[in-house]
Formats: sequence, C-alpha cells, structure tokens
Amino acid sequence: MRAPVIDNLQYVNWSETAFRQLREGRVDAIHVTIAYHESFREAVLNVSQWNGWFEQFPDLLLRGTTGDDVRRAVETNRTAVFFGFQNPSPIEDDIGLIEVWHQLGIRFMQLTYNNQSLLATGCYEDNDTGLTRFGKQAVAEMNRVGLVVDMSHSADRSTLEAIENSTRPIAITHANPKWWHRALRNKEDRVIRALTESGGMIGFSLYPHHLKDGTDCTLQSFCEMVAEAASRYGVASLGIGSDLCQDQPDSVVTWMRNGRWSKQMDYGEGSAAQAGFPPQPDWFTDNRDMPNIAKGLADAGFAQDETDAIMGGNWLRFYDTSFGAQE
Amino acid sequence: MRAPVIDNLQYVNWSETAFRQLREGRVDAIHVTIAYHESFREAVLNVSQWNGWFEQFPDLLLRGTTGDDVRRAVETNRTAVFFGFQNPSPIEDDIGLIEVWHQLGIRFMQLTYNNQSLLATGCYEDNDTGLTRFGKQAVAEMNRVGLVVDMSHSADRSTLEAIENSTRPIAITHANPKWWHRALRNKEDRVIRALTESGGMIGFSLYPHHLKDGTDCTLQSFCEMVAEAASRYGVASLGIGSDLCQDQPDSVVTWMRNGRWSKQMDYGEGSAAQAGFPPQPDWFTDNRDMPNIAKGLADAGFAQDETDAIMGGNWLRFYDTSFGAQE
Repeated sequence: MRAPVIDNLQYVNWSETAFRQLREGRVDAIHVTIAYHESFREAVLNVSQWNGWFEQFPDLLLRGTTGDDVRRAVETNRTAVFFGFQNPSPIEDDIGLIEVWHQLGIRFMQLTYNNQSLLATGCYEDNDTGLTRFGKQAVAEMNRVGLVVDMSHSADRSTLEAIENSTRPIAITHANPKWWHRALRNKEDRVIRALTESGGMIGFSLYPHHLKDGTDCTLQSFCEMVAEAASRYGVASLGIGSDLCQDQPDSVVTWMRNGRWSKQMDYGEGSAAQAGFPPQPDWFTDNRDMPNIAKGLADAGFAQDETDAIMGGNWLRFYDTSFGAQE
Repeated sequence: MRAPVIDNLQYVNWSETAFRQLREGRVDAIHVTIAYHESFREAVLNVSQWNGWFEQFPDLLLRGTTGDDVRRAVETNRTAVFFGFQNPSPIEDDIGLIEVWHQLGIRFMQLTYNNQSLLATGCYEDNDTGLTRFGKQAVAEMNRVGLVVDMSHSADRSTLEAIENSTRPIAITHANPKWWHRALRNKEDRVIRALTESGGMIGFSLYPHHLKDGTDCTLQSFCEMVAEAASRYGVASLGIGSDLCQDQPDSVVTWMRNGRWSKQMDYGEGSAAQAGFPPQPDWFTDNRDMPNIAKGLADAGFAQDETDAIMGGNWLRFYDTSFGAQE
C-alpha cells in the first residue's frame, strides 16, 4: 500500500467538485466538522447529510470509523471521511450522548470552541477553569468509548488538564506553535510538549490567521516551522489539520464566531476591516494542492519516510489506537 | 391591603392539597422552579403544566408576572405564582431565548446550578471563572428585559462579578449566611454585603442542609440569624426563600444533583448515609406553617413593620422595580 495522505481537519462547503478535488489531490482521509454550535438534533441533520453523500458518491467517498477504513480508501482510490465536533454542544448536558455519538461515527470532539463550555474553557475567555466537574467525567467517558479529546480551540490550562486527566493520548487537530506565529489560537511550546510527550498529535493548520504573514505565508516558511517542530517534539507527533474552509460564504464564519450566544458582532481572529474568511495562500487553495505540502516538506529536509509520516502515517497510527473501546 | 406574604423559592410537588395549604398559610405569592436541568423544550412542558393548574384552580392561584399580581392575589385571597429557573439550561446557547422566556413569564434565572454553566461557575466547582463572555452578554440582556439574575447556587467570584456587571439589583433567592452555618451553599459575609449594598435581596432558606443543626434547627436560632443579618445588611434587603421541597420523592433530589451530566452518584449536600431529602424542622413542614416564621421574627425583636417587610414587603418592592423592561 502506498503511504496514506490524511488531512485531519477540513470544513469545506462540500460538493461533487470538492469531492473530486480530494481524489485529484490523492487525499485518502479527512476529518470533517459535524458541529460548531449545533444541538444534538441539529448535529444529527449534518450526519444525515453526509449519509446522503456516501450514498450518492460511493466511488469517491466512504465512511471512516477505524484506521482500516483509511487502508480501504487507499486500496479503492476513495477518500475516507471521519466525523468530529469542534464544540461539545451536541452532547448538550448529557454524558450518555458521548457513546451515542460514537455509535453515530463521531471520532473527535473539542471540549470547547473559543468560549467556555460545560466541560472546559476556550481560548477567547479571560479566565480558564480547567476541566469542570462534568468535563472530568466527559473525558473519562470519551476515553472509555474511543472518542478523541481535541483541544484546538481551548485555553492553555484546560488543555493541560485534559492531557493530564485523559488516560489516552489526545489531539490538537488544527493549530500551529505560538513560537512561529503568536496568534491567540496557536499553542504555547509547553502545551505542545505536554501533548506530544503523552503520545498526543498536533495537526498543523493552513488557515491564514494561524500562519506567519497570513495569506502571504510561504510554503517554505510553513515547512521550516514543521522542521523546527520535528526537532522539538519528534516527527511521530506531527500531522496536517489544514482547517481548509473552501467555498464557504462569509456568513458561515460569522456563524462560527457568533453562534447564537452574542448580540454584538464578534470578529474572532478577523476584524471589522477583514470580517470574512481570509484568502488561502496560493500554494494551498484546495485539495488538489495537497502534494505541494509533501514537496515542501522534502525541500525542508525531511526524508521520504518522515514526509510520509507527517502527511498521514502518524494520523493513521493514531487512528488505529484511538477509535476503539478502551482495553 | 394587608401586608403580603411572599416565599421567593419553593419546589413543592404540587397538588390541590398543596395549593390549599398555601391559602391556609396565607401565602400570597411564591416563586416556583420551572427548571433545574431542562432544555428549552422540556422547560416549556413545565410552563404548560402550570398553565393547566391556573386553568384548573382559578380560585386558588393566579399567574404572577408583576408586583401588582401580588396585590391582586391579596385582594382576591389567592396565591400569585411567579416562575424562575435554577439553571440557565433552558436558554441553551441562545441569547435570544432570554426575551422569549420573559414573554413566557420567567422572572428569575440562576446563572448556574452548582456546576459550571455557559454563563458562570457554580459553588461545587473547584475553580471559578467569574462571568464568561456569554455570561456578560446574558446579564446585560436579562437587565434589558427584566429577568432577575439569581446567584443562589453560584460560586463567590461569579456572584461578585454578576453584582458588578448587572446594572439592576440581583437576588440570592434562597441561601443563608456562612457566618451562621458554614454550608457550601451558604454565602460569605462579603458576598451578601456586596449584594445588599447594590440594592439586591437575599431570601433566607429553610432547607435543612442550609440550617444550623439541620433538621433540629430551632425557630429561635433561625430568627436570631435573621436579626443579626438585619443588623449587618439592613432589614430592607431581607426576605424568605424557603426552598421548600415538600412531597417530593427522593428520586427528585437525585435528579437535581445529577441531572444527566454524571455517571457517578453525586450526593450534593447529602451523603451516602443521607441521600434523600432531609426532613424539615417541625416548625416549617408545609405552607400552613408560614405564620410561625412571622411569629418567630416578632419574638426575635422585630417590629411589626419590619416583620411585614421580611415576610413579603421587601420582595414586593423588588418585584415592582425588577420585572419590567429597563428604562
């Protein structure tokens, strides 16, 4: 089998065109977002929409729930689609919904999306409780059933406590190091160290607000950052989580930032002057550009096996050990 | 008009018997709990249940939404029933539901019930964020529409920040001072001072876990506590919020404590040895005993006008200024 390519976070406005681009870019597996602010019932609608796409495009897509689904995708020239939540809103206040969602195929769940949740604190809050009472129980339940804790949008203390409380490795599916670009959403060195030393994974983001120089970030700068991260944390903990938000109208980023909780406009990582989605760097505009990343990593000095690991092998290993019931 | 008697927090298992006891005890108004952990839709069911009781018992009850409804109740020998939430769960993640709930008659909402909520921190959490981003916006919206912030089950920092952020006086509808009985749910002197200095009200609780000596607490001890509170905070900020949980099966207190968030048994203020509702003191077992409190206050040295104020006049003044839209 050729080495798999996995992008562990995308939020594309999906269409047949976008599905075909996945194949053109040889992307074997993606982790897609099923919920930002959705309630249980609303998130079920999004699962149902994907069920329709799996039925409609069986030659392009397959449902991903285990690492073997990635292998099946490689062998049959399709893309395995894994589900995740960027917010725990779909479990509402009910710990029993964690197992229900695992049954429905959810494999990653962020404990917070920017704001305080019932479980932990997001990176946009002024104060960080760490894990709440419900949060500690939820992490244990996620560990039990095989639903990965994702702390991409969480505050530092909450992230460190999630790493400490979780009996299985966790993930930061899409963020970059703050030592490269000091964005609120990027992560402190000590947080990435604690994550990777406990077997966790970080997926590097290609969302312009997370990139040094934003839209003008060069492929070389990005890949040099990955090389520095490899020297700090080891190659085996690194992957891609591009956060690709292709073809989305700007109303979607307003929804992502404001949900239903705000009566004022919250611009999040943007501003009144740049309220919408920022333009992607020209070397990564859609899934057809995925081979550029592999080439950039090689140019930055990574050996072929290291590039393969970062482009998907590491995520596949993580999938193999993370998605089943705890032994 | 005779002085009104108002109990600003009851969670009775309502029945015709219990409604008739309200009349026997001459209780002119009560604030009842519409939600502990309920979602929007579930809380609507509880409103609907009360709608049925208002229709079924028009000679005993009337719907309370303004201070004048208390006066109408006194004049017609009925009990005005005001609605409140002990948890913000019925607004879910939607700030727009605050006004919707005000339209449906809700007049008090706790920002937290023991645990962390999307708005603030409960008194059972180890760490206290104060008001969250959503919490600050929610308090402003509650101020705008006339929905009173209640911090009975909240942690200290959150309570102090609610007092500071709110442009209208807030309430602790049911709790006692920690200087009298050091229960987790009772309140620090500095918190009650900040509350009352800003025009807020505290309702004294008759729930045994909040009482010195629990079920064995004497009426004299309770009323001496009220007298000490009057000397510290002034008579005008004091009322009753008995937290009467009459005729409830123990399964209800298990639900109040555990909701859907816990897979372990949480005993809250109880213990494995005393898991259920604690027995009431014999001088306050149901609404027929309400005159005992007034008598106890008189025996503790309060003048008639002071007793009247504590038994209901203060809450009525607070209702008059709190339930309408902000001017």
